[in-house]
Amino acid sequence: MKYSYISHLYCPKCETTYDHTKVNQLCECGAPLLVAYDLEELSKNLTKAELLVRTASLWRYHELLPVVDEANVVTLGEGMTPLLDMPSIGADMDIPNLFMKDEGIIPTGSFKARGAAVGVSKAKELGVKELAMPTNGNAGAAWGLYSARAGLKSTIVMPVDAPKITRNEVAVSGANLHIINGLISDAGKVVGQAVKEYELFDASTLKEPYRIEGKKTMGLEIAEQMDWKMPDVILYPTGGGVGIIGIYKALTELKELGWVEGKLPRLVAVQAEGCAPIVKAWQEGKQESLFWENSSTIAFGINVPKAIGDFLVLDAIYKTEGCAIAIEDDAILQEQEKIASMEGAFVCPEGAATFVAARRLRKSGWIEDNQVVVALNTGMGIKYPETVSVDVPVIEKGDKI
Amino acid sequence: MKYSYISHLYCPKCETTYDHTKVNQLCECGAPLLVAYDLEELSKNLTKAELLVRTASLWRYHELLPVVDEANVVTLGEGMTPLLDMPSIGADMDIPNLFMKDEGIIPTGSFKARGAAVGVSKAKELGVKELAMPTNGNAGAAWGLYSARAGLKSTIVMPVDAPKITRNEVAVSGANLHIINGLISDAGKVVGQAVKEYELFDASTLKEPYRIEGKKTMGLEIAEQMDWKMPDVILYPTGGGVGIIGIYKALTELKELGWVEGKLPRLVAVQAEGCAPIVKAWQEGKQESLFWENSSTIAFGINVPKAIGDFLVLDAIYKTEGCAIAIEDDAILQEQEKIASMEGAFVCPEGAATFVAARRLRKSGWIEDNQVVVALNTGMGIKYPETVSVDVPVIEKGDKI
Repeated sequence: MKYSYISHLYCPKCETTYDHTKVNQLCECGAPLLVAYDLEELSKNLTKAELLVRTASLWRYHELLPVVDEANVVTLGEGMTPLLDMPSIGADMDIPNLFMKDEGIIPTGSFKARGAAVGVSKAKELGVKELAMPTNGNAGAAWGLYSARAGLKSTIVMPVDAPKITRNEVAVSGANLHIINGLISDAGKVVGQAVKEYELFDASTLKEPYRIEGKKTMGLEIAEQMDWKMPDVILYPTGGGVGIIGIYKALTELKELGWVEGKLPRLVAVQAEGCAPIVKAWQEGKQESLFWENSSTIAFGINVPKAIGDFLVLDAIYKTEGCAIAIEDDAILQEQEKIASMEGAFVCPEGAATFVAARRLRKSGWIEDNQVVVALNTGMGIKYPETVSVDVPVIEKGDKI
Repeated sequence: MKYSYISHLYCPKCETTYDHTKVNQLCECGAPLLVAYDLEELSKNLTKAELLVRTASLWRYHELLPVVDEANVVTLGEGMTPLLDMPSIGADMDIPNLFMKDEGIIPTGSFKARGAAVGVSKAKELGVKELAMPTNGNAGAAWGLYSARAGLKSTIVMPVDAPKITRNEVAVSGANLHIINGLISDAGKVVGQAVKEYELFDASTLKEPYRIEGKKTMGLEIAEQMDWKMPDVILYPTGGGVGIIGIYKALTELKELGWVEGKLPRLVAVQAEGCAPIVKAWQEGKQESLFWENSSTIAFGINVPKAIGDFLVLDAIYKTEGCAIAIEDDAILQEQEKIASMEGAFVCPEGAATFVAARRLRKSGWIEDNQVVVALNTGMGIKYPETVSVDVPVIEKGDKI
């Protein structure tokens, strides 16, 4: 029995195929490459029941991941994050079957650990020694730390406004850290230059084909945790969009394997009002988005003015009859407090945005009575301490309360 | 089949027994109460193999937990944290079989979630409506958030120097938060007063009998994750000491169940040089510790000058032929960086202290050749951002690196 059923890489735009045993970046046409598996063979060799006794990490799905030799797996125990029921806030927004997939309960405290675990493992397997990437914070933290575990060198470029804690994570990993007075798109240009000059592996979002496979496991887990019945709606905070592309790819592969049946969930891309290129493109029925000028939001992880995989995000929305919706920062902050005080979960602003989106889509009727809805929380609230203001007087020893 | 095999509560000092269906705090003699289970009956009704297919949370051990009705379980998906191999830093300190139990990968980012999940669930089951506790930060964050999920009111009193992020967590949970200019012992006095005045449930460390049962699950998980073979040594950062007491209780119960065999691991209580009452007591062969004056350490979670369960910690050390060791703050910070850059894990200072302790105990020969050693990391490094200093110049758009 093979550890991985990877067969090759392919371009979703021009359909060129590539050899997965070689180092690859983008397709020659400029589009991101995707990983193909021999699903027919796998369907004959693995049953859902066999998964049950496996380790509670994303590596339980190793046949559907690109790492060929288990010895190359670089892991900090990531994956199989909780799928929590949200009865109180669900009742509050009239969605009795509301669930949250909590991606805060993972190494480095954000879903970026999934992409880093699989991306770094595959880079190691392919002989990469040094990689570089721009980041809004969490991805850099994850790739810096997983690179350290793998023994790879990393260069990380981060906007000066990215969450300070993620800066600390990159620094403590021993990565080569640079801070830039600009956005992630500016950081990307610096990385592009460095990649050329020093012949580094470019680990920028979707410029390497494997992080998406790591993020795909969110979709695999949701399906398994729901006993292979798919929800009606999945809401995802969308910046670079790899999470939503990954979930779509996962559910499509599970259908092909015959492990799930019926219609795919309607996928909802949730963006911030101050940076909503996908929402705009979707509203206009476009296949690609335009660069969003002067983007700004407290939900820093989704401050991505133009995603290289935008066409894949939009395709996933169209194919599943989903939608895209933009949320204002103050609504996000209100919802964040509500989720904590009603459900005990301190989610990140990006995660809170998906709950606001669910609330509005229910109100408008787009989410129907008693539908099963999964909101993705992509990271821990504690990584963004400035979103909570605490104003409590200090008492002295012996004071009474 | 019963959900819990709890039989009663008992005092480990004076042996008085108590009814577990009533609300209890300390024994009349002033000692903490422990939970007893009907292990003989359980050993006839459950096998280790049955656990394998259960949910990856601490509730997989529900028979060994005090909650009688599953409907009262309050969970955010806590438990089954990763047990990671640490090959690089293990080689660095000549402990080839070094493992880390990573309690950062849990709701609220610290092992305190375990005590809160079980403690709050049981409080709910017993009809408690409002609880109060002092905290060094992480416990308050966990109890505040789990109380919110359970629909209980909570009052939390925290030293002004406790990690700021934990203050945010308590605030966002909607708890009644107070900050005190003093230590956790001063906060404890304020809570004691409030408990009397307002008739609150006192959820202070070991003043309620159930948090220890939650923390016990660390020991159960280590045994299961090592395929029911116990390690030779377990190192635990020790403040209030509930973690080490819990692990000792877990392994003792597993022996009684017949699920593990042989000698228990030697338990090591790791403290900070600036607050080492247990170390002092152990060095002097005492059964109890004395209040540590002017305690101070960056490892804030173990800044506990006098633990109410000190005699139980010392008993666990003596019974397992373990030891106690104190570590200086600067050695902790150095080790924290080393762990991150060599293994990709950004641990908290308390966790880093256990690695320094392992290093020293190996050097002295106390840890022998090829022994299997488990170091507990009790929380995420990101909860203590000030322990990492980042000094990187800011570059401008278009700059090269």
